[in-house]
Amino acid sequence: MRSDLQNKSQAPEILAAASLHSSYAGQYRQELLDNVLPFWMKHSKDEKNGGYFTCLQRDGRVFDTDKFMWLQGREVWCFSYMYNHVSPKEEWLQMALHGAGFMEKYGRDASGNWFFSLTADGKPLTQPYNIFSDCFAAMAFASLDKAVPNDRYKEIAISTFKNILQRKDNWKGQYNKAYPGTRALKGFSLPMILCNLSLELEHLLGAQQVNELIPPVIHEVMNVFYQPARGLILENVYADGRFSDSFEGRLVNPGHAIEAMWFIMDLGVRLNDTALIRKACDIMLRTLEYGWDQEFGGIFYFMDILGNPPQQLEWDQKLWWVHAEALVALSKGYELTGDERCLLWFEKVHAYVWEHFRDEAFGEWYGYLNRQGTPLLTLKGGKWKGCFHVPRALYQVWKTWERIQS
Amino acid sequence: MRSDLQNKSQAPEILAAASLHSSYAGQYRQELLDNVLPFWMKHSKDEKNGGYFTCLQRDGRVFDTDKFMWLQGREVWCFSYMYNHVSPKEEWLQMALHGAGFMEKYGRDASGNWFFSLTADGKPLTQPYNIFSDCFAAMAFASLDKAVPNDRYKEIAISTFKNILQRKDNWKGQYNKAYPGTRALKGFSLPMILCNLSLELEHLLGAQQVNELIPPVIHEVMNVFYQPARGLILENVYADGRFSDSFEGRLVNPGHAIEAMWFIMDLGVRLNDTALIRKACDIMLRTLEYGWDQEFGGIFYFMDILGNPPQQLEWDQKLWWVHAEALVALSKGYELTGDERCLLWFEKVHAYVWEHFRDEAFGEWYGYLNRQGTPLLTLKGGKWKGCFHVPRALYQVWKTWERIQS
Repeated sequence: MRSDLQNKSQAPEILAAASLHSSYAGQYRQELLDNVLPFWMKHSKDEKNGGYFTCLQRDGRVFDTDKFMWLQGREVWCFSYMYNHVSPKEEWLQMALHGAGFMEKYGRDASGNWFFSLTADGKPLTQPYNIFSDCFAAMAFASLDKAVPNDRYKEIAISTFKNILQRKDNWKGQYNKAYPGTRALKGFSLPMILCNLSLELEHLLGAQQVNELIPPVIHEVMNVFYQPARGLILENVYADGRFSDSFEGRLVNPGHAIEAMWFIMDLGVRLNDTALIRKACDIMLRTLEYGWDQEFGGIFYFMDILGNPPQQLEWDQKLWWVHAEALVALSKGYELTGDERCLLWFEKVHAYVWEHFRDEAFGEWYGYLNRQGTPLLTLKGGKWKGCFHVPRALYQVWKTWERIQS
Repeated sequence: MRSDLQNKSQAPEILAAASLHSSYAGQYRQELLDNVLPFWMKHSKDEKNGGYFTCLQRDGRVFDTDKFMWLQGREVWCFSYMYNHVSPKEEWLQMALHGAGFMEKYGRDASGNWFFSLTADGKPLTQPYNIFSDCFAAMAFASLDKAVPNDRYKEIAISTFKNILQRKDNWKGQYNKAYPGTRALKGFSLPMILCNLSLELEHLLGAQQVNELIPPVIHEVMNVFYQPARGLILENVYADGRFSDSFEGRLVNPGHAIEAMWFIMDLGVRLNDTALIRKACDIMLRTLEYGWDQEFGGIFYFMDILGNPPQQLEWDQKLWWVHAEALVALSKGYELTGDERCLLWFEKVHAYVWEHFRDEAFGEWYGYLNRQGTPLLTLKGGKWKGCFHVPRALYQVWKTWERIQS
């Protein structure tokens, strides 16, 4: 059932199945272009100060004006990405430039670290304690530089990337609360995002640096964080790879593992490594089976690999990004392996998402559902939800089904 | 309807109502002595390393062995408090000493700050980033010193208290992520707990120091954090008392305000200030009306004073401590003011608690219910729930109803 990656010919049964689902590409394309991007275009622009509002009520009204750097960077990335990949629409470019101008002017401290948050008018509110602010800033300026090549954007992207590499082994710095040495765990967020980031910056860094960065990350994710006995990926392990029987060590974040598996599949395509793609697809499917709520549907947010109570009180909630990433991973898994389980799971997650996350009345998707699948918060954006996971997933699913159907 | 605080004679209608509820004192006494304290005696003692396990499954089995200093201190306090106030049982004293020995040996860094958490065998895990660890340690050793007077315990309690006073204006130190000056908010947790703590340490500090500490705290809580227009207490305001329209500034924590109101009522009794008691009782009742979930019952965990989505994903959950504190505040409010609304609310919260939080099968109370009132986590103890709020509330409610009925 595995498709040949060199030549995109598909087995006849896959083509038959795909033809039953010929509308997915159109459905996700339409959702992106007619619903989600217009929602952010309409509601998130801060005309007065520059930058974006991201704390948006169900109907798009702004309920908080703080500017969170993760989400500023992600929205710049998103609109420039759409400009680069979907269509060179002037309004998308202007929207990306609007956020980039604000970020460039106010976003960094004197050492070039990106603040976590600013006031509406750009005063620093929260210190640069979180290196993912820097990651999304680098992604933003690299993507914008592809749209409108500019030495300033290049310089911001490259210097931010270099700063991330310098800080990466101790990025929490003074804010790190762990006592040194007692339980030295490593997390898989940063290696994963660095891998993704280096791909985003490849036009600036060159293929060689990217090629050097990829193999150790694949090794870490697929051999160190991955636990073959359970078929699951842990969020944190000891530096030497051992399991830590602690809250952090037992933590499984199904959405994060699923997202990582489509990054790995993309790397598999780049490396023409079908075994890697197969393994990533299997882990993704196993994670979905493990993380799926048999009673109410949807994917749990956090779980404990030993079945103990997780410390996160939001563990049983259904989050938009988890489900958006699952749709991407399942589409890519189906495209690349032809595994029927991907199709069945895609249909299941698709049905859940369109029934529960999508807001027919006011557009965009809810971010946070309770276990039962009704909105826990009716916001469309907040401190952590912005213009990123939904449009990125819609684009990826659209394009993947377009390839499957072609 | 207000009772005379000097002379405990009650109006006839209060006595009649109270006689209808003559069983509360006995019910809460029995719950404390036959269920809750035995549960912790049986399951939480770490015989090998000293100290207490607090991460306990529904049936008391230990699922995580880390030692969180808040909960170590609180359990030492609890067993010595019961020894001091209920009965000088040798097993309670030994249990308190068991935890205190571990804390004394491993709990502090070289500057006398209390770590946030340790491994089972006492290695530091999490730095002293949280001053409430120190508060509960001071409470623990002061209470133990009342049980078995000892210069070492006195010294630990007093030096910890002095250290808290020294650190109080910048207690987060290097771990503070707020950029200085942009939005300088103050919270009401620390003044409240310092007030409570000074009462706990009065035998060591002397009445004068305690009397100096009380009036500014009462002023802060009842005039600065309290918002008369809405009848609610905010968690955070600007240094000059202004409202901050931000996630932190809009935050209401009904359980915290309700708990604070019984601390204030206790201060009102001490100061013989009936107007203060009346005001605290009114704020408590208003907070309950505001925080009560009309659809499923129980008190919400977090709310936004402007009705916006709170940033805490656990906002709609029903937590044990919130409800335990409400039972105490309502009992005291009824005792001290005779306000019938306190009695009606007590009956309502009592019914909710005994139906939803209490675990008939395995003892103790669940800590975390979902909005609908079923256990979200079936644990009896964890990183934040230990041997503290439930036994303290059971004792307070028992003794208050004993006075009401006498």
